[in-house]
Amino acid sequence: MTPTPDTAAEKAASFDLAARVGLGMFASDVASRDTMGMELVCCEPGRAVMRMVVKPLHLNGHQICHGGFIFTLADSTFAFACNSHNRVTVAAGCSIEFLKPGQLGDILTCEGLEQVLQGRHGIYDMRVSNQRGEVVAMFRGKSAQIQGTVIPE
Amino acid sequence: MTPTPDTAAEKAASFDLAARVGLGMFASDVASRDTMGMELVCCEPGRAVMRMVVKPLHLNGHQICHGGFIFTLADSTFAFACNSHNRVTVAAGCSIEFLKPGQLGDILTCEGLEQVLQGRHGIYDMRVSNQRGEVVAMFRGKSAQIQGTVIPE
Amino acid sequence: MTPTPDTAAEKAASFDLAARVGLGMFASDVASRDTMGMELVCCEPGRAVMRMVVKPLHLNGHQICHGGFIFTLADSTFAFACNSHNRVTVAAGCSIEFLKPGQLGDILTCEGLEQVLQGRHGIYDMRVSNQRGEVVAMFRGKSAQIQGTVIPE
Amino acid sequence: MTPTPDTAAEKAASFDLAARVGLGMFASDVASRDTMGMELVCCEPGRAVMRMVVKPLHLNGHQICHGGFIFTLADSTFAFACNSHNRVTVAAGCSIEFLKPGQLGDILTCEGLEQVLQGRHGIYDMRVSNQRGEVVAMFRGKSAQIQGTVIPE
Repeated sequence: MTPTPDTAAEKAASFDLAARVGLGMFASDVASRDTMGMELVCCEPGRAVMRMVVKPLHLNGHQICHGGFIFTLADSTFAFACNSHNRVTVAAGCSIEFLKPGQLGDILTCEGLEQVLQGRHGIYDMRVSNQRGEVVAMFRGKSAQIQGTVIPE
Repeated sequence: MTPTPDTAAEKAASFDLAARVGLGMFASDVASRDTMGMELVCCEPGRAVMRMVVKPLHLNGHQICHGGFIFTLADSTFAFACNSHNRVTVAAGCSIEFLKPGQLGDILTCEGLEQVLQGRHGIYDMRVSNQRGEVVAMFRGKSAQIQGTVIPE
Repeated sequence: MTPTPDTAAEKAASFDLAARVGLGMFASDVASRDTMGMELVCCEPGRAVMRMVVKPLHLNGHQICHGGFIFTLADSTFAFACNSHNRVTVAAGCSIEFLKPGQLGDILTCEGLEQVLQGRHGIYDMRVSNQRGEVVAMFRGKSAQIQGTVIPE
Repeated sequence: MTPTPDTAAEKAASFDLAARVGLGMFASDVASRDTMGMELVCCEPGRAVMRMVVKPLHLNGHQICHGGFIFTLADSTFAFACNSHNRVTVAAGCSIEFLKPGQLGDILTCEGLEQVLQGRHGIYDMRVSNQRGEVVAMFRGKSAQIQGTVIPE
C-alpha cells in the first residue's frame, strides 16, 4: 500500500491529484472514450470506477458483448487506478474470469481497487457488475511503475 | 485433442467444416469485424489466425494500442479456434501477458492453437506478433463446450 | 455471495458448520498437515486462515522457500474457504503472483476470502504475508461445486 | 528466443551447459528432490522434464494428490527450463489449470518448454501428464532474469 497521508490536507491533495490525473488521461484516451463509449465515474488514490453501456457495436457473433470489450472496460479501470498516484504505470499481465454474459443494453460498472503496492509493483482487482448487481467478470492486473509522471507535478 | 480423422476425406471434411464455421461466425461478429477492423485469415480444426492493423481508434492515452484491444484480438482468435469443431464453445477464463506495445500502423497477427481438448474443456494458446516478428502478447484461454452447433450440421 | 443468514442462530450454525468442516478436512489432509507442516488457524463461512513456518524441507536450490510450497499453502487455504459451506468444491484453476521470497524461519500466514459465489462457481482470493506484514504472494482461485457434502449434514 | 547457436560445437556446448546447470541446481534442491521425491529427467536449453510418483505423502483430504504438489512439480520444471541458459532467473507469476486429479501411484511427468524469451523476460509452458498420456494440468510461468550465473562460467 502507499504510505498513508498524515493529515487531512495531504489526503485532500492526494484525492485532488488522482482526479486530475484521471481527467488528463481520459481526455486523450480515444480507445476508451470514443471507440468504446466508456465513462470515467471517479479516479481516487488507488481506486477508479468506469461505466459502459452495451451497444450494438459491442456485440459478437453470439449477439452478446464481446468478452474482449468487458476485458477492455476492466483494463481501462485498472489503468486509471494504478496511475492515480501520478507515477506512469503499465500493465504487465492480467487475468479475467467471465461469470455472466453482457447483454445489449446492460449497464456495466467496473470498480477497481489497489490490493498491494510494494515498490514499483502493484496488484489491482477489478469487478465488473451489471445493473442488477450481478458480477459479470473479475479481473486481476499486475502493474509496474516506469519513469515519469502522468501530469506535471 | 480431438480424435484424429481416419481418412483424407474425413480430414478434408473437418477443414471444410471449420472454414464454414469461421465464415458464419465472422459474418455476424460486429465487434471484431466492424468495430475493431479485424480480418479472419483462416479457421481450421483447432486453429485460427486473425489480423488487425493498429489505427487511431485503437489508441489509449499513452498513444499506443489499448491493451484491451490486443486482448480482444486474441480473444476473437480464441473463439474461432475453439468453435472450429462446430460445437458451441464459450470462454471461461483467460490470461494475457503483455510483452511489447502495439504502435500506430503496426500489423498485429494472432495465431491460436488448441493445446488440450478433453471432454468439454479445452485450453488454447494465442500468440500476437507484429510485422517484425516480435511477440506482442501471449494469451491463454480456457473453454467450455455448451449445447448446440454453430452452423447447422 | 451466499445468502445472508437471517438470524443470529442461523449465523452461529453456519460458523459452527464451517468449523466442523475445517476440522474434518484437516484431520485427513496428510499433504497440508504432515508433509508441509501447516496449521489451520480458522475456517469460517467463505473464509479460512492457515499458517506455515518455512523449514529446511521447504527450501529449493536458491535456499528460499520453494514457490510451489507458497502456492500449496494458498491452495490449501482456498480449499478450506471454498468447502466451508459443506458442499464438495474443487479447484478449476488458479493464478499466483510472487512478490517477495519466503526465507528460512519466516512465518507465512495466508488469509483466504470468498469474493464471488454465483451458482456453483466461486472466486476466492488468498493473500500470503510474512511476520513483518509484507505480502509474499497473491493467489486467486476459481472453484466449482460438485455433488455431495464434506461432512454428513 | 535465444540466439540460435551457429555451429554444431556451439549447440553441443549449450546442451552441455544446460545439463550441468540442471545437475547443480537439483543437487541442492531439498524441496523438489527430498521432500517431494521428484526426478530430473533432463535439462536442455529452454526445456526440462521432471517426474514424480504420487505417494501417500502427497494426498490431501480427498485422498488425491494435493493440487499444490502438481503445481510444485510444474514450478520446479519451470525453474530448470528457465535457468537452463545459466542466467539466474526467477518466477514472477504463474497460472495453472487443473484438468484431471492425480491418483495414488500415478506417474506424473512434466515437460516444460520455452515459448518466448525477449530480453530479460520469458514465458514457459509446462504440461503435466500421467502414465496414460492424459493431461493432468497445464501451467504457464513468466520469468525474469536477474544478476548472476547459476554455475560458474
